[in-house]
Amino acid sequence: MTGSRELSGEDSLIVRYFKPLATDPGAFGLVDDAAILRTAGEDVVVKTDAIVEGVHFLPDDPPDTVARKALRVNLSDLAAKGAQPAGFVLTLALRRAEDSWLAPFARALGEDAGQFGCPLLGGDTVSTPGPAMISIAALGRVPAGKMVPRAGTKPGDWVMVTGTIGDASLGLDVLKGGVAAEALAGDIAAREMLIARYRVPQPRNALALALREHATAAMDVSDGLAGDLAKLCAASGVSATIDLPRVPLSAAAAGLIGRGVVSLPSLISGGDDYEVMCTVPDARRTEFVEAARQAGVAVAQIGAIVGGNEPPKFLDAQGTAVALQRLSYSHF
Amino acid sequence: MTGSRELSGEDSLIVRYFKPLATDPGAFGLVDDAAILRTAGEDVVVKTDAIVEGVHFLPDDPPDTVARKALRVNLSDLAAKGAQPAGFVLTLALRRAEDSWLAPFARALGEDAGQFGCPLLGGDTVSTPGPAMISIAALGRVPAGKMVPRAGTKPGDWVMVTGTIGDASLGLDVLKGGVAAEALAGDIAAREMLIARYRVPQPRNALALALREHATAAMDVSDGLAGDLAKLCAASGVSATIDLPRVPLSAAAAGLIGRGVVSLPSLISGGDDYEVMCTVPDARRTEFVEAARQAGVAVAQIGAIVGGNEPPKFLDAQGTAVALQRLSYSHF
Repeated sequence: MTGSRELSGEDSLIVRYFKPLATDPGAFGLVDDAAILRTAGEDVVVKTDAIVEGVHFLPDDPPDTVARKALRVNLSDLAAKGAQPAGFVLTLALRRAEDSWLAPFARALGEDAGQFGCPLLGGDTVSTPGPAMISIAALGRVPAGKMVPRAGTKPGDWVMVTGTIGDASLGLDVLKGGVAAEALAGDIAAREMLIARYRVPQPRNALALALREHATAAMDVSDGLAGDLAKLCAASGVSATIDLPRVPLSAAAAGLIGRGVVSLPSLISGGDDYEVMCTVPDARRTEFVEAARQAGVAVAQIGAIVGGNEPPKFLDAQGTAVALQRLSYSHF
Repeated sequence: MTGSRELSGEDSLIVRYFKPLATDPGAFGLVDDAAILRTAGEDVVVKTDAIVEGVHFLPDDPPDTVARKALRVNLSDLAAKGAQPAGFVLTLALRRAEDSWLAPFARALGEDAGQFGCPLLGGDTVSTPGPAMISIAALGRVPAGKMVPRAGTKPGDWVMVTGTIGDASLGLDVLKGGVAAEALAGDIAAREMLIARYRVPQPRNALALALREHATAAMDVSDGLAGDLAKLCAASGVSATIDLPRVPLSAAAAGLIGRGVVSLPSLISGGDDYEVMCTVPDARRTEFVEAARQAGVAVAQIGAIVGGNEPPKFLDAQGTAVALQRLSYSHF
């Protein structure tokens, strides 16, 4: 992203829409060719996640929610790793540069950058004949050696998860006119809540310090709780036992399950939750729960890490293991 | 990019093709959710550039050259900023995951990562119904405060440029069957050289230290020498006078100009050169040229920075200013 005296179309849209977001001195107001991040011996945490029109967001999703989702899916990873956001670079691939789309997109992106303390450092805008795609690489900071790993848990650790699970996949179902849309035809508030959960994740960055201090392993739940837990366990060579009745649900999700519209196993295999799953030793459990409370983030204890190499077990209220049809979402 | 015990399609292709590239300990073998870059008080330089099928590369370009171009357009920026490559994250948006494409793509990417000391730190693979796109965010290091800026030049500084200019745009013309293709119908060596210049940029990372020590301003030439020089001048509130006969050309490009097939003004407005343009004070000129020689990078002195706000002037052999039809490439 560059400024220039004789503005080409690309330069002009960058100055108009994105320069106001480049509030960090290391961004050089987007008039240089690269940005800098000053360091002082900490570890810089790097994460990139892209969202594609038709895959991660829908063509008629409002541009402000698309912007927020693009940044927040990356902020969610920084949160899970215990990192403090430092800034991000943006690749924006669009068919056309339309003011009516770019203005609300950039405004919302700037609001989120401010809210989460993660300023725009630079980027690239390119034209594409295909669907829009927004790729963000987010940078964060942790004290040296203190990133919360995916590996690191042991049998006996508790498995905790933030927020509620399954709302986003129900929101997508509502937007696509699926079973949840039919069942909630008369409940506009529930429909809107679920759609908002799909469109605008709520990354748990407030929990980063508590995770760094107490968690032995963590990752964000983006491809389904079941599959992501399997990955977390595999990284440490352990297994887990999850009590399905303890999985935190919104009232809307619980209601749909209660009415038999959807099943809990399908919700824990759905994507786009952007909650944090972590493991906490028993000795740290009370402190972690208290730190989470002070950070204003709801956490639920859903099970425990156990020894073994088999996939995690999900037990129903009767203690019977439930078979899952699929663990998570895969792109290929 | 994640590893797992029960490999989904996405995870499987990451393990197969990209894990071997994650040679840096901070990449955690791609089994964590983020990577780290250890720091020691230096500035981390961040740059992102994307290439889109049909825009920056052609659908039938070989996958190995696509990989090299994707990384090298970013390495070129790090070079111009005087930064030492530290690593990169990759977003790969593909219609399908095909071994026949991914295997040579990943192999070439790994070779370049090794050659330029810029290991893969992490990434994201997503499916797209549209054209393939490869977005890379590259990280580099410079001593604190020592990034070579785009602004910083003064009247009297010499304008220098590396390598040769215009070959890549001629290579694209050859691939598209344009005027250069016709004129070079009998010269397969020239055609192949020009195509290679389009497909595989030669970033001047060997020059980074010399730039940091001697240059007052620098940027890479990616959207055309003329337009990029105008941007460099605008950043410092100066102008420039360029002697067109001093612009370094390959024998093939010079021959095409000599035969009247293309004009020099069209070549300095063409894109994809990925050379470095910099400004050097007269007192540092000899040292810079010697440092470049030792680095094995050809540099040519093509003009000088002058006062004023008008666009740079391009003078022909008779000292007459040449009018340019366009300065550079713009996406929108």
